[in-house]
Amino acid sequence: MFKATISNAKEFKKIVEAMSNVVDEISFEVDEKGLRASAVDPSHVALVSIDIPREAFEEYLADPHEIGVDLGVFKKIMKRAKSEEKLILELDEEKNRLNIILENNATRKFSLSLYDVSSSNVKVPDLNYPNEIVIKAGAFKEALKDAELVNDHVTLQTDGEGRFIVLSKGDVNQCETIFDESSEAVLDMRITEPVKSTFSLSYLEDITKAVSSDDILHIHLGSDIPVKIEFNIADGKILFLLAPRIES
Amino acid sequence: MFKATISNAKEFKKIVEAMSNVVDEISFEVDEKGLRASAVDPSHVALVSIDIPREAFEEYLADPHEIGVDLGVFKKIMKRAKSEEKLILELDEEKNRLNIILENNATRKFSLSLYDVSSSNVKVPDLNYPNEIVIKAGAFKEALKDAELVNDHVTLQTDGEGRFIVLSKGDVNQCETIFDESSEAVLDMRITEPVKSTFSLSYLEDITKAVSSDDILHIHLGSDIPVKIEFNIADGKILFLLAPRIES
Amino acid sequence: MFKATISNAKEFKKIVEAMSNVVDEISFEVDEKGLRASAVDPSHVALVSIDIPREAFEEYLADPHEIGVDLGVFKKIMKRAKSEEKLILELDEEKNRLNIILENNATRKFSLSLYDVSSSNVKVPDLNYPNEIVIKAGAFKEALKDAELVNDHVTLQTDGEGRFIVLSKGDVNQCETIFDESSEAVLDMRITEPVKSTFSLSYLEDITKAVSSDDILHIHLGSDIPVKIEFNIADGKILFLLAPRIES
Repeated sequence: MFKATISNAKEFKKIVEAMSNVVDEISFEVDEKGLRASAVDPSHVALVSIDIPREAFEEYLADPHEIGVDLGVFKKIMKRAKSEEKLILELDEEKNRLNIILENNATRKFSLSLYDVSSSNVKVPDLNYPNEIVIKAGAFKEALKDAELVNDHVTLQTDGEGRFIVLSKGDVNQCETIFDESSEAVLDMRITEPVKSTFSLSYLEDITKAVSSDDILHIHLGSDIPVKIEFNIADGKILFLLAPRIES
Repeated sequence: MFKATISNAKEFKKIVEAMSNVVDEISFEVDEKGLRASAVDPSHVALVSIDIPREAFEEYLADPHEIGVDLGVFKKIMKRAKSEEKLILELDEEKNRLNIILENNATRKFSLSLYDVSSSNVKVPDLNYPNEIVIKAGAFKEALKDAELVNDHVTLQTDGEGRFIVLSKGDVNQCETIFDESSEAVLDMRITEPVKSTFSLSYLEDITKAVSSDDILHIHLGSDIPVKIEFNIADGKILFLLAPRIES
Repeated sequence: MFKATISNAKEFKKIVEAMSNVVDEISFEVDEKGLRASAVDPSHVALVSIDIPREAFEEYLADPHEIGVDLGVFKKIMKRAKSEEKLILELDEEKNRLNIILENNATRKFSLSLYDVSSSNVKVPDLNYPNEIVIKAGAFKEALKDAELVNDHVTLQTDGEGRFIVLSKGDVNQCETIFDESSEAVLDMRITEPVKSTFSLSYLEDITKAVSSDDILHIHLGSDIPVKIEFNIADGKILFLLAPRIES
């Protein structure tokens, strides 16, 4: 069996949205420890991984199961959730469905057919990063929007003066946002090495789309390795890896 | 002559919008008792009827007239009305026009050419309903939006336990919203018989589009007869009938 | 050199937007007195002219320069400005670029390539107007939106009773908004002659698009001459001339 209750449906909505911006379907792995999932996008550029311990749930009962769902439909359902609404996820093994119940004044029950999702549950590679920037998501997203004005990719770099720079160069125009330790949006910075990697803007925007302005991102940046972006949500953790573009 | 003044233009805007979501043109019947109109949509699935007594108007003077107008244009004009604005409707018999005057800081005067609308002023059939649900429009509209996620039609049903259920079944997924007497959105319920009828979602959404979340709907539901949805507006009454789909 | 600082980036945003709604590129003329620009739209129907004295800037240093820019890109950059943000404009003569720096928590620096803009810096003709209406921009824009419901051009007229009328006639419907000295939106009126000129609605809407509802417009209206619309912004002045349509 699997039945899990979350007191704030909006938080789980964020998790579903964050995953759905990277992959179309996913297999949730549930057991007594909690709910986990990870997947790589079709072009093998981005990886998303979530880990929500049972403590994050108001009620939680689970035998080991793989629950494969269409994230597009799941996202549409979660978009219908209102704040203050309670969410119940319940596996109907007989009908091979996941029931998604939203409780508020009325009870709303959605039933989602399950899929066999083979591409899921990849292992997250263990990488070492020389730099970590802890920054408010809002400020980072604004820097990406600025960059979008001049090109479709963006360079994330750290320099010898301990600054974190979001840089975009177009054919004629360019744009850069500079963060240092004194920036209000920066909560912490550990910069030990100047590095520079270029990423697809649309992927970075997909990854951060579900994140609220007040959420705190941990950006781990190295040279020629994927950037790792982590944030906490509903007592759980969500992690993205994004491979750098090969610059010509 | 015909001249009628409404102190709150926004209320009449709602009436015009509600009608325009069902039919393209309508003939208002005015006389000393008030303003009435009714019409059936081109596919004969939905009927709309309004009845606004003279007491609903701040000032009212009317000889018997049929005033046929293009509801699409009328709606666009009424959309320009602001709250706190006074609305004056005035028949210009000589020019065969309806003057729509909005008074606020400036005076804005629109003139609408009149049409011969033959399809209007149908009689509203007198039906008996075993069930009536009095519900906040907002909650009912939310249930329709949920249903829209899985199919383009929706089943409205009452069951033996005195519940009112909005149910939608797709090929793989399904969705249901359950209201009972304890639901906050339900003001009153008179359920004497379990019934079940299926309706086109787009018609139900058109019918309820002009309704505010706080408006109170009276939903009259039977078996194999049109659902009747009524609400009060500006001391007047607006009524919709929607024929059920023949289920295959 | 040229370096100018404005404490409120939003005000300069309005100026750039107002110009960009009329022309695609412009050449700013800067010198010790301040920043000026003027241009005529490609179809020679509308003229825009701005004049911002050095006193409007927090800091200002300028040798005489012509700074030609793509207003479409400039507008997109200025749209990224937030309230409370400081704007620094800085000419990079070596790289032939205009740096647009937004300072807030983070520093954001955009670099805009310069163009040779030959069509700019036209002279504003000196015309005499018998009528001037000083009116809140919001009310005038609302009157234009009303007019849009019935046609794509609008007649601005004054009558013998000292009223200012925005009139639009369609094939079947018509609309007029009447302002007189008692209208709340009217701050001042100097009407010495009944006049009547017809203008393209889309041009008038472009001209007033960047204007806030609370801004005060000075509308100068004559017969068979362009209407002149002026307003103040950031201690500077922006002026539009719009040629009348030849009525058939």
